[in-house]
Amino acid sequence: MKLYCATSNPGKLREFRLAAGAGWELVPLTGVPPCEETGETFEENARQKAEYYSRHSDGLLFAEDSGLAVDALGGAPGVRSARFAGDGASDAENNRLLIERVRGVEDRTARYVAVIAVAEAGKTLGTFRGEVKGVIIDDARGSNGFGYDPHFFYPPFGCTFAEASPEQKVQVSHRGRAVAAMVDWLKRT
Amino acid sequence: MKLYCATSNPGKLREFRLAAGAGWELVPLTGVPPCEETGETFEENARQKAEYYSRHSDGLLFAEDSGLAVDALGGAPGVRSARFAGDGASDAENNRLLIERVRGVEDRTARYVAVIAVAEAGKTLGTFRGEVKGVIIDDARGSNGFGYDPHFFYPPFGCTFAEASPEQKVQVSHRGRAVAAMVDWLKRT
Repeated sequence: MKLYCATSNPGKLREFRLAAGAGWELVPLTGVPPCEETGETFEENARQKAEYYSRHSDGLLFAEDSGLAVDALGGAPGVRSARFAGDGASDAENNRLLIERVRGVEDRTARYVAVIAVAEAGKTLGTFRGEVKGVIIDDARGSNGFGYDPHFFYPPFGCTFAEASPEQKVQVSHRGRAVAAMVDWLKRT
Repeated sequence: MKLYCATSNPGKLREFRLAAGAGWELVPLTGVPPCEETGETFEENARQKAEYYSRHSDGLLFAEDSGLAVDALGGAPGVRSARFAGDGASDAENNRLLIERVRGVEDRTARYVAVIAVAEAGKTLGTFRGEVKGVIIDDARGSNGFGYDPHFFYPPFGCTFAEASPEQKVQVSHRGRAVAAMVDWLKRT
């Protein structure tokens, strides 16, 4: 089944495809001016993006919003995860700021959250949330994944998401779980 | 200053001495029949031991009760930490059971707790609590420490307590913190 996907992030697209598995043709939507992300929650941003981009595609489209919520930082960086250190910040800059903020903090619990919205012709048909719990460590470990993965230690694996293989990560990750919920819903509808 | 210490655990005694530092002569009490530990809390057990053993010593004595409380296991093994896999169980047997119990569990948050009671002539004079937060990992790592240390991953260090040096561990450990609180109190009284 063909499904448009609103993302310009190659790391996300790779994970979407890995999570959805065979049988789903995920087509990135190109050539559309970017959508603003003004929401206060992952849900709002995912819906905003899905509704906007689905007006520029001719079938079902999904958009995702995701980020890291660190308990000791009151849920930050949250919806600002990609631009924590400022608009256009690199992963390295965002990670540096994160580790500065948790310095001296003992409670390192955090969650990665992903919300996917599926829309058609400007209308959201469903939203799907995935979460995964971990802890933040100071030293970057591993080179897989992207974003905060080198600092996101997942206790059941005993390693960071950047040390896990992409196939391992997607089994438990926020994104993998949100995609699984979406695929499950699409099969039933 | 001389202080009697009621423990037969060489690992604990080493950590008590390291945490107390120079100026404190910690003397293990020997030749006294062991005390029952029937309390439901670390506090009860620490007081029970301190009061019992202080009747067999001629000055200030402290006793400690400590253990691991895993959130997903409702605080187990808790006061049963040393005998989780049965009376006389080894560290390896207790650790094996712990890892069995957390299999498939994503929330791996746990706390190490230590409570020290200081007593004289059968009367408790003060109790001091130390806690430290970590997460449980499946694979044993490191050979320092004892008890559940190889599976107790401390995020600010990015390693398990068994991988940390004894000097590092005692700076943040439940036992180190409880001893620091006791020493602080002894200096003031």
